[in-house]
Amino acid sequence: MKQVFIIGVGLIGGSFALDIKKRNPECVVYGIDKSEAHLDKAKTLGIIDKKATYEDLSTADVVIVAIPVDATLEVLSKVLDLVSDETVVFDAGSTKEDICLKVKNHPKRRNFLAAHPIAGTEFSGPDAAIHNLYNNKTNIICEVEETAFKLQEKALKLFADLGMRIRYMNPKAHDKHIAYVSHLSHISSFMLGKTVIEKEKNERDIFDMAGSGFASTVRLAKSSPAMWTPIFKQNKTNVIETLDEYIDNLKHFKKLMLEDNFEAVFKEMETTNHIKDILNGIE
Amino acid sequence: MKQVFIIGVGLIGGSFALDIKKRNPECVVYGIDKSEAHLDKAKTLGIIDKKATYEDLSTADVVIVAIPVDATLEVLSKVLDLVSDETVVFDAGSTKEDICLKVKNHPKRRNFLAAHPIAGTEFSGPDAAIHNLYNNKTNIICEVEETAFKLQEKALKLFADLGMRIRYMNPKAHDKHIAYVSHLSHISSFMLGKTVIEKEKNERDIFDMAGSGFASTVRLAKSSPAMWTPIFKQNKTNVIETLDEYIDNLKHFKKLMLEDNFEAVFKEMETTNHIKDILNGIE
Repeated sequence: MKQVFIIGVGLIGGSFALDIKKRNPECVVYGIDKSEAHLDKAKTLGIIDKKATYEDLSTADVVIVAIPVDATLEVLSKVLDLVSDETVVFDAGSTKEDICLKVKNHPKRRNFLAAHPIAGTEFSGPDAAIHNLYNNKTNIICEVEETAFKLQEKALKLFADLGMRIRYMNPKAHDKHIAYVSHLSHISSFMLGKTVIEKEKNERDIFDMAGSGFASTVRLAKSSPAMWTPIFKQNKTNVIETLDEYIDNLKHFKKLMLEDNFEAVFKEMETTNHIKDILNGIE
Repeated sequence: MKQVFIIGVGLIGGSFALDIKKRNPECVVYGIDKSEAHLDKAKTLGIIDKKATYEDLSTADVVIVAIPVDATLEVLSKVLDLVSDETVVFDAGSTKEDICLKVKNHPKRRNFLAAHPIAGTEFSGPDAAIHNLYNNKTNIICEVEETAFKLQEKALKLFADLGMRIRYMNPKAHDKHIAYVSHLSHISSFMLGKTVIEKEKNERDIFDMAGSGFASTVRLAKSSPAMWTPIFKQNKTNVIETLDEYIDNLKHFKKLMLEDNFEAVFKEMETTNHIKDILNGIE
């Protein structure tokens, strides 16, 4: 692995670059980004070695596509057109069905590995890139059988070097389940932030009353709208299903309160308490 | 300050005990708890020096009532009956209106200080007690003018020693605003946990897909139902108001998605993004 190209030098791409450079000193990391300012920043921060353009992709060993999922749909075919037969291209998007569908019939489909590393923070841009982001994190790989075996090996070695655990899944199942364990959390957090900001807009010092619990619950409301809007768009059906169920559960909780059925309110919380065991090891 | 009594030796009371003992080596800390097992545990952990009963309260300099808010309503008058004129009694409950109302006409009302330290974790019981829980945290004091001046001083010195910032508020305003910045977060978190657990109950390994974002958003769903049920009961009207607004915001978000109005979805998130600035300093 001599030449790695990162398309999108933000939190996700930048963090890949940092760890790859650290573990492979011989490797040259190239950055491609529609923002010249981000590219310059990434170079200054030592995240990438050189700035590049799509025309340079022919010499790539590995291409990592780490841009919003709508942009991935736009560029992925072009990227595959430009790379050599020995290049593995993988993405890091939070949706998989549309992306896999987009390149289904591409002559270089076997050069692409559909991936979703479950890692990130609420921050974005090159400044947000950090070392060891992927260590001990799960990487979901979809339609692995569609990728050439030797290129799978190349990508899996890279993931193993970064400390990632691999899980295989079909794109439909990925998008359905990830709506519950990731996409819904973001909406619940954004709408919680909205509710409180709207109510307290004229009393900013009320936020002095907020503790670490509130901060934890609205943390995801700091996330990038440019990244999340296309995710909700591509995963619309699944996300709406989760939202419907979430709203129903909130309405039911409210109904129990209105009826003064606090025994049932207690049980609602007690039943959910075992999330403790489920979360063990995630935090 | 020679004798401090902690009623309820869990997370809140136990953490007060630890810091008070550390800063006042001459002080003897007594524990009162309806659970004999918790008292024994607190003694073994060095949280309290001695087990005690309500009958011992006559010698107390300070009494800290750190039990669920329904239990506080039950015992507070009795506690005031039993203490000396020099004793300051303060609570730590997440509701203030019912508690202040309960002792409004008590002959020893001036011995009581209504307090709400904005501090805690999602854990409970003596094992959850930790040092420095209150350092740099806000403590909301209600109806301060109802407390004898010398006893205010005694309590404020204790809070200052523990590193707390003080804010004064009336009980009605406290309960209204805390519903937004604390109580609603707990419901959103419990119901998010419920939604995901219900959906994925037959596919436990799906939680491998959950990342730190999900963990952060459902963290509060680990909280104690015994503590939270009476809070929701006492603050029912305010909490239902916040729930209504939250549900409306979620429905609106869903409507925008259904209409494919992703420009507006983007704007919803962008507008809420400035929670970043608001949260600065809380986490």
